[in-house]
Amino acid sequence: MVETRSGEKLLETDPATMPPDGHVDFIGRIASPWITRETCPKNMKAARETGQPAHLAIDPLYRESLLGLERASHVIVLSWLHHAPRQLIIQKPRHAMEPKGVFSLRSPARPNPIGLHVARLVAVDIDTGRIDLDAIDVLDGTPVIDIKPYFASTDAFAAATMAGRDELSRSDGQ
Amino acid sequence: MVETRSGEKLLETDPATMPPDGHVDFIGRIASPWITRETCPKNMKAARETGQPAHLAIDPLYRESLLGLERASHVIVLSWLHHAPRQLIIQKPRHAMEPKGVFSLRSPARPNPIGLHVARLVAVDIDTGRIDLDAIDVLDGTPVIDIKPYFASTDAFAAATMAGRDELSRSDGQ
Repeated sequence: MVETRSGEKLLETDPATMPPDGHVDFIGRIASPWITRETCPKNMKAARETGQPAHLAIDPLYRESLLGLERASHVIVLSWLHHAPRQLIIQKPRHAMEPKGVFSLRSPARPNPIGLHVARLVAVDIDTGRIDLDAIDVLDGTPVIDIKPYFASTDAFAAATMAGRDELSRSDGQ
Repeated sequence: MVETRSGEKLLETDPATMPPDGHVDFIGRIASPWITRETCPKNMKAARETGQPAHLAIDPLYRESLLGLERASHVIVLSWLHHAPRQLIIQKPRHAMEPKGVFSLRSPARPNPIGLHVARLVAVDIDTGRIDLDAIDVLDGTPVIDIKPYFASTDAFAAATMAGRDELSRSDGQ
């Protein structure tokens, strides 16, 4: 049973128990300094500010797929937030004034529990499957489902805005 | 059977047939002007340059989850590229000199076929589940698995680089 705060709303059917439309295979795991939710940074900016690096451990099956990744200065990591509830469609982050739909939040609790993290790529070792990053904002052991090179031409929108974002900055997660 | 070019490599086991580690539920579909692979833009920059808008049609179950999304100027759409092969771990894009690992490419053919698209948000209608975007670079009917607000503070890295990126600009996909 998922606990809800005032104004929050659960789907009647948990997406985790719906007939699958597709399936994911984990390609590796995230190794991070964060082993409790309380200490885990809530977003990549906060993670970076701790000065703590992190790394990905890619499974042997997929290591060859890293060929050429060292050319990238930044990468997009997609994680599978396997401990997060999936049916909480209206959420009230702790520091927010109003409840909000999950697709307007970066909360880890979402119908498909995919986390998105843009990190600076520090090193890639294809033989050991180790990818060093400047920081990460998820718990140690979180599964990885995809890695993509970051392209400024299609991914960087420095002028993007989010009205009322300040109130959410401490509670928005991935 | 997946066709390969010289230098490309397939996993022996297709990830699509491996025991699932997790499952996704489609939350809606992308409505785009692109109905053939030949005419579909290969990335969001090319899609934007066509001047053709697109929209997402969100399933009734998930429409409430859009509450507050209108505050965002830009959104991250995660798609499920259901027609792409999943076992092509080394790929040689048509205009590339050397074969590359899939995690150094934005190719739609990847172990977990998730496309990532940063788009400008034009309008949100919660009642009808329609989300208007400035452009999209995938075929009409492609499933959507997540929508996230784009935050410049954690997602925008205008100075990010990718060595040798120019040679790939026409063939990199999502």
